Amino acid sequence: MTARLDATHGADLTSWVASANGHPDFPIQNLPLGIVSAGNGERRPGVAIGDSILDLAGLAAAGLLPGEAGRFVEAGASGTLNAALALGGGPRLALRARLSELLREGTGERPAVEPHLHDAESCVLHLPAAIGDYTDFYAGIHHATNVGKQFRPDNPLLPNYKWVPIGYHGRASSVIPSGVPVRRPSGQRKPAAEAVPAFGPSRNLDYELELAIWIGTGNAQGEPVPIGSAAEHIAGYGLLNDWSARDIQAWEYQPLGPFLAKSFASTVSPWIVTPEALAPFRLPQPARPDGDPQPLPYLRDEADQREGALAIELEVLLQTPLLREKGLSPHRLGLSDARHMYWTMAQFVAHHTSGGCNLRPGDLLGTGTISAPDLAGAGSLLEASQGGREPIRLPSGEERRFLEDGDEVILRARCRREGFAPIGFGECRATILPAAVP
Amino acid sequence: MTARLDATHGADLTSWVASANGHPDFPIQNLPLGIVSAGNGERRPGVAIGDSILDLAGLAAAGLLPGEAGRFVEAGASGTLNAALALGGGPRLALRARLSELLREGTGERPAVEPHLHDAESCVLHLPAAIGDYTDFYAGIHHATNVGKQFRPDNPLLPNYKWVPIGYHGRASSVIPSGVPVRRPSGQRKPAAEAVPAFGPSRNLDYELELAIWIGTGNAQGEPVPIGSAAEHIAGYGLLNDWSARDIQAWEYQPLGPFLAKSFASTVSPWIVTPEALAPFRLPQPARPDGDPQPLPYLRDEADQREGALAIELEVLLQTPLLREKGLSPHRLGLSDARHMYWTMAQFVAHHTSGGCNLRPGDLLGTGTISAPDLAGAGSLLEASQGGREPIRLPSGEERRFLEDGDEVILRARCRREGFAPIGFGECRATILPAAVP
Repeated sequence: MTARLDATHGADLTSWVASANGHPDFPIQNLPLGIVSAGNGERRPGVAIGDSILDLAGLAAAGLLPGEAGRFVEAGASGTLNAALALGGGPRLALRARLSELLREGTGERPAVEPHLHDAESCVLHLPAAIGDYTDFYAGIHHATNVGKQFRPDNPLLPNYKWVPIGYHGRASSVIPSGVPVRRPSGQRKPAAEAVPAFGPSRNLDYELELAIWIGTGNAQGEPVPIGSAAEHIAGYGLLNDWSARDIQAWEYQPLGPFLAKSFASTVSPWIVTPEALAPFRLPQPARPDGDPQPLPYLRDEADQREGALAIELEVLLQTPLLREKGLSPHRLGLSDARHMYWTMAQFVAHHTSGGCNLRPGDLLGTGTISAPDLAGAGSLLEASQGGREPIRLPSGEERRFLEDGDEVILRARCRREGFAPIGFGECRATILPAAVP
Repeated sequence: MTARLDATHGADLTSWVASANGHPDFPIQNLPLGIVSAGNGERRPGVAIGDSILDLAGLAAAGLLPGEAGRFVEAGASGTLNAALALGGGPRLALRARLSELLREGTGERPAVEPHLHDAESCVLHLPAAIGDYTDFYAGIHHATNVGKQFRPDNPLLPNYKWVPIGYHGRASSVIPSGVPVRRPSGQRKPAAEAVPAFGPSRNLDYELELAIWIGTGNAQGEPVPIGSAAEHIAGYGLLNDWSARDIQAWEYQPLGPFLAKSFASTVSPWIVTPEALAPFRLPQPARPDGDPQPLPYLRDEADQREGALAIELEVLLQTPLLREKGLSPHRLGLSDARHMYWTMAQFVAHHTSGGCNLRPGDLLGTGTISAPDLAGAGSLLEASQGGREPIRLPSGEERRFLEDGDEVILRARCRREGFAPIGFGECRATILPAAVP
């Protein structure tokens, strides 16, 4: 664990950017990193502060980011953060410390910094990195149990689950930033009542409530990352919606796992919330229930057990055209928490590299759907509607078993702890478009 | 199908590059494309001709590749072929036609071309493209049946196999070119006789005999490629060894498919053999056995049925330190043919994009292991040794159930047809290094 509490975490810190103070996501204690186009459309590194975005390239050009902090921004000049993330924690930490100074109430630098602030609403947010590979884990044990019951009623949690951080390779090309609409996929589906499959638009389109992990420093092929240093390879976190066509998935997934059921689109939030910003929200790993095995030695580390889990409240909401028309707010479909993960982020990195697989800067890992133990904490509709058997009733009078065209799904995340300023992740949202006409 | 027979396919064509004439892989009828470093180490596009490599960047700089042919090479100036492959068939075909003229016996251009030839032995061959995503299919029906028997004796071929071109997302970061040694992976394995898993070096390391498919023009996300134009998105073919740790695979693969059992390394041959070079070796799709379903309409195309299959003889050989010490040749472990695929290359592209997934230029697809119906045509040791029960006897007196450290696996491919010059793919080879010491 490299993240330590320091002056940037003070609960009483305020910013001269007025909208940052009390902002649900982006107070001065957060300072998440991203790639932004303002005005002329050039992609540049930026940081979210309240309702504004600070142009880091402009700040660096004005000489306001000397030393290590400037190195981070210089490496991001290509329009992706890959090379900046590759630098590891040092320059990222230096940038955070410097930005905290520059944005703090009372600093003398305000006149020099202010010209580099843009209204967030006037900016376009891009993927923060060019994603080399995308891996999705399956660490939400309540999700794995709930879904397992539907695909394999007699055998919900397979014998390997409590030993292996189960994961699969996802599709990097179709990862898109929040706000880009998602077209309903078509594919082969074979309802149990039919003798043969048919091709057509998915009828059981679903979301998955996940956290995203952005890899910083990579590892060489053939050189595993030990669990003790695994957390140092993580550059930060975001929200991830691993859209899933359940009917396509059920028919295609054996024996090689999900393929087209998930590769049509995965939506990620644009801001990288750093390990430094999350330092106050670390938790000990929850005790494993009696009878569960201890992690094998390559997945066990004292510091990771002490503070490798994260307290992040995760929320998924649905906005439908009718809810909007009636002036109603998006309807909450689930409220969960990252503490329900069976494995830690460091365990993902150690496991992923344990056979020699190389991670590269800017790679994306997903946690898998994180559901709470109860139905109100379901991280997917498959769970919330119990496989479509129990429709969700919305305040508009509508019902949903799965997603309909025009539905918008919104993921949010918040960290709260007494004595610290709450921070959030911004939104991960997208609207469903009708299937392509062949 | 865009590839047609033309003057470049003439069986009587010879080259002034003497080693090309009768060369088992690279006569003037082949002209495969790659990325090469000669001497100073700069990566440049090149073409294989006999025992030599022609530096295409040098040729273009000398003004010998005007028009479309030059466009292809210019797009490859960055040191990868991605942008060149993106141009589609036109520039690739123009380049082939021009190279065929320049290298033909009797051309007046020989003095201008000759300075750009390098001895292949003095060159380093790289991955021809930066691979955005790597997908591996499972189209070898004899392999699927043989392996299915070992993992699921009662249920070898699952009900979806004859409907869905089954595939999974592989790991792009760990794809390496022929010649780079492969480190034996460690991982969790749980022999049936043990109550709990243990972590350690894989004991059941295996190869997989596959063809590689390089994507040329991509497709936009949400816009499927119809089967009728799917073949136009393929820029060429290579050999692929999807190394597999069978013990790790057996324990980890449910329910999300193979993960670390295959992501430590996949070896690909460096030359892209173009659809144009393979035009003489196209075949009708084999008739499906009685009782097998016809492909669904989105996978059915008259031209693809008429000539969508390929006749490519595929061979896997093993070289051990002891065989080498005794002066013995590499031992053939299997001889198969691409005609044993249940699906065509065009069906892969149409299926992969059918839900809206976007392919990008330079993406890599694998066919899956292609085994012949008989044991002598096994494409993996898992099949050849029947799960390790029947060891393979080598002429050195050694036995192999699975691969040992120091073993070298060599894949080769040849196309033969009466009235045409045979062509080959070059080699895809790598040696196994001992597992990393933790």
